[in-house]
Amino acid sequence: MPCSYSKMFEITAENGRARTGVLRAGNMSVETPAFLPVATKAFIKTLTPDEAKRTGVKAIIVNALHIYRRAYDVVSKIGLHEFMKWDGIIFTDSGGFQSIKKFPADAGQDGVTFMMPDGRKEIFTPEKSMEVQKAIGSDFLFALDDCPSYPYTRERVEESVERTIKWARRCQGERHFAILQGGVYADLRKKCAKEISQMDFFGFAIGGLCIGEPKEEMHHMVDVTTPLLPKEKPRHLMGVGSPEDIMACVEKGIDIFDSAFPTRNARHGTIFTSHGKINLGKGKVRGDAIDEECNCYTCRNFSLDYLNYLFREKETLGMRLATIHNLAYMNDLMERIREKIRG
Amino acid sequence: MPCSYSKMFEITAENGRARTGVLRAGNMSVETPAFLPVATKAFIKTLTPDEAKRTGVKAIIVNALHIYRRAYDVVSKIGLHEFMKWDGIIFTDSGGFQSIKKFPADAGQDGVTFMMPDGRKEIFTPEKSMEVQKAIGSDFLFALDDCPSYPYTRERVEESVERTIKWARRCQGERHFAILQGGVYADLRKKCAKEISQMDFFGFAIGGLCIGEPKEEMHHMVDVTTPLLPKEKPRHLMGVGSPEDIMACVEKGIDIFDSAFPTRNARHGTIFTSHGKINLGKGKVRGDAIDEECNCYTCRNFSLDYLNYLFREKETLGMRLATIHNLAYMNDLMERIREKIRG
Repeated sequence: MPCSYSKMFEITAENGRARTGVLRAGNMSVETPAFLPVATKAFIKTLTPDEAKRTGVKAIIVNALHIYRRAYDVVSKIGLHEFMKWDGIIFTDSGGFQSIKKFPADAGQDGVTFMMPDGRKEIFTPEKSMEVQKAIGSDFLFALDDCPSYPYTRERVEESVERTIKWARRCQGERHFAILQGGVYADLRKKCAKEISQMDFFGFAIGGLCIGEPKEEMHHMVDVTTPLLPKEKPRHLMGVGSPEDIMACVEKGIDIFDSAFPTRNARHGTIFTSHGKINLGKGKVRGDAIDEECNCYTCRNFSLDYLNYLFREKETLGMRLATIHNLAYMNDLMERIREKIRG
Repeated sequence: MPCSYSKMFEITAENGRARTGVLRAGNMSVETPAFLPVATKAFIKTLTPDEAKRTGVKAIIVNALHIYRRAYDVVSKIGLHEFMKWDGIIFTDSGGFQSIKKFPADAGQDGVTFMMPDGRKEIFTPEKSMEVQKAIGSDFLFALDDCPSYPYTRERVEESVERTIKWARRCQGERHFAILQGGVYADLRKKCAKEISQMDFFGFAIGGLCIGEPKEEMHHMVDVTTPLLPKEKPRHLMGVGSPEDIMACVEKGIDIFDSAFPTRNARHGTIFTSHGKINLGKGKVRGDAIDEECNCYTCRNFSLDYLNYLFREKETLGMRLATIHNLAYMNDLMERIREKIRG
């Protein structure tokens, strides 16, 4: 297969609507379909960057608004890579406002208003969001979008689509992903995708899903959106998620996923294994091998008995070992998916 | 210096009352004076065994009663080393009852009564405690003692000394440490030390200190006790502690220390450095290097800014990086102390 290193995104094989390829930033790269763990606050909860890398993670997603509120003075000087000592690819979410529950953030005419730790109100305009993401050294930036929280009215989603299209125009750039909204309304999804896919973006992200709507609606929205996106550009599905949803959405043509699902599950004691989910800490699971088919640090070094015991004792080492395992599981899953597409 | 590998404890140099040497168990060894981090529940909080070893830890102390209450079925089959994947030396505390606040435990005529997780009451007689410590594969066992909680009356301490002497007789053994009580009463400490030091123990531990009594009392009790202990046998001071107290007590002839002090401080954001303590998470400490003189994983890889930020965000990765640093600091301290004794 010919391979041009000048191309930042390259599709190397296709199988139906599914595609596999590689995404590059400088001398860093990640094979697609790729799963990005969330490092919302510039850390993958419980893990060092070394550990994350050893599970196979090559790219993560950080929340730019969080960094702006909590550590902008330092990070705008030295950059996220240096701050958190992560030498892989960093995506930055423009807002992810619905995920930060501690402070109110509101999308209005001009941008998104939020409160700083000292109580001052500030506004992220589209330009300000891009400026912040650049300042913190993001590799792939997201346009500012208006993501209504679920449940929403059709009117609210109509407004969010208008606003998201308008703001996208002000966020275009060569390492930038646009975010597509439209709620669970096929016509609004299509309108948003058609308008924004004309703009000058590096890639397109489907946002506003997996926020409480029925699962079928999520899959339906991905189905109506992906055919409208340019084939040669990367497609990111935000907030997904579970191994099953990822497998299904790869078939619909998605290249990149990000979600807290595997890491959050791990911290709550649910691990994914080759023979199904295991709930730790309940005193019932027993045995030596955690997952015979897994070669991660946790499975190589510890027993299911010990891992279960750590959760029973509410010890953070347990959360950490479970996080390592779930990320290794996701990495193995993505590798199997890519192999299947290559045929 | 001649060195006989058949000897489990060997003093290789002395300087005043201070001594340095080596303690061996099978093919494992630790140089003395040694500091043992606590792994009360069969884990050093937040750390993997690998990480602890890389900070220089060679020996830890586990609470036998905790293991008996929470994981005895598994651990009595495979042993602590295999259960927690620790291939260094393991000391087991016979009770440490005052440290477990969640359930009542009472020393009476026959032993120590405590409640099992299912509500049943059980009793650790001296024989039962030794049986449990052997069953879980301890390398160095502690005799069952009666440690009154502070504040106490002289009468209560007199009772504890009588009982501790009586029980010690039933706990003798070639890998066993006796525990000496006597509160803050020099005459009771001396009586206890004189009687028990005649018995057939591998080593002697000074217990019942650092539990709330004034610091000078602790130092005074160590002063009156150590001269009464056989010179050729190892001396353990339980529950100590801080770098200053360790340095002072090495001068009094102590060989082994165990304490939660460095690890607990780390989890609460206090790290020890070559230029004093640093309190993390308050938003005031700033800078790049954590401790220029430290070569631990944390200091080699992360900035003071990032560590401080992790504590501000209450992220467990911060506690873990601080724990690694404080244990490395303790290891460096003990190494410097040993070098100084060797002269």
